[in-house]
Amino acid sequence: MQQNQQSDIKTHVGFAKTPEPPYYAVIFTSQRTEGDRGYEAMAQAMFELALKQPGCLGAESVRDVSGLGITVAYFTDEPAIQAWKQNSEHLVAQRLGKERWYSHYELRVAKVERAYSGPRSSPSS
Amino acid sequence: MQQNQQSDIKTHVGFAKTPEPPYYAVIFTSQRTEGDRGYEAMAQAMFELALKQPGCLGAESVRDVSGLGITVAYFTDEPAIQAWKQNSEHLVAQRLGKERWYSHYELRVAKVERAYSGPRSSPSS
Repeated sequence: MQQNQQSDIKTHVGFAKTPEPPYYAVIFTSQRTEGDRGYEAMAQAMFELALKQPGCLGAESVRDVSGLGITVAYFTDEPAIQAWKQNSEHLVAQRLGKERWYSHYELRVAKVERAYSGPRSSPSS
Repeated sequence: MQQNQQSDIKTHVGFAKTPEPPYYAVIFTSQRTEGDRGYEAMAQAMFELALKQPGCLGAESVRDVSGLGITVAYFTDEPAIQAWKQNSEHLVAQRLGKERWYSHYELRVAKVERAYSGPRSSPSS
């Protein structure tokens, strides 16, 4: 049964395959500056690198035509978030983000307490 | 000073003007089905209605060209989230979302513990 559930979830491209709560969410809302200037390649690399980070449970990322984006990365716990924050390649990306790629961003760290999915799955609590 | 900070924050279109944590985030990730079928008008109405809901601190919403979207709504506490979930107009939108507008969604309720912004503001913790 568990294997079936797993493969059901995997068919939903773009969604993170997170376990039952509790776990952590890092919510990063950002407004891009004009022009690519290396952004797209780095964003893709960082998304893939985050997913390989120990304790990373998955991530979801969307950016609209106006350049407003929301990325949510899910982690097992706070130490995993801190390790990702200190990752050397990620530190370079963070610096370029501040200097070059974002006119503004908000980063919020939150503990996920409950989760639902749909439209066909039933609520988990 | 507080008024200046307030108006600085208001210049960032698309970002929620949230207070110092703790507060709650409702993270709604969704994949749209094909065709509008009343979606855009309802989505705009629900976004505005949520912002008027007592205890709602703000919201951020992005959808990309593939139809993947992330909306994060911020609330003071759990009772405010429950009241919004039970709002009668929102209940209609939730039903149509399940029946018509979303091929899949994930909804996560999380307690925001800390927050940062940039690139010019200094970290809040």
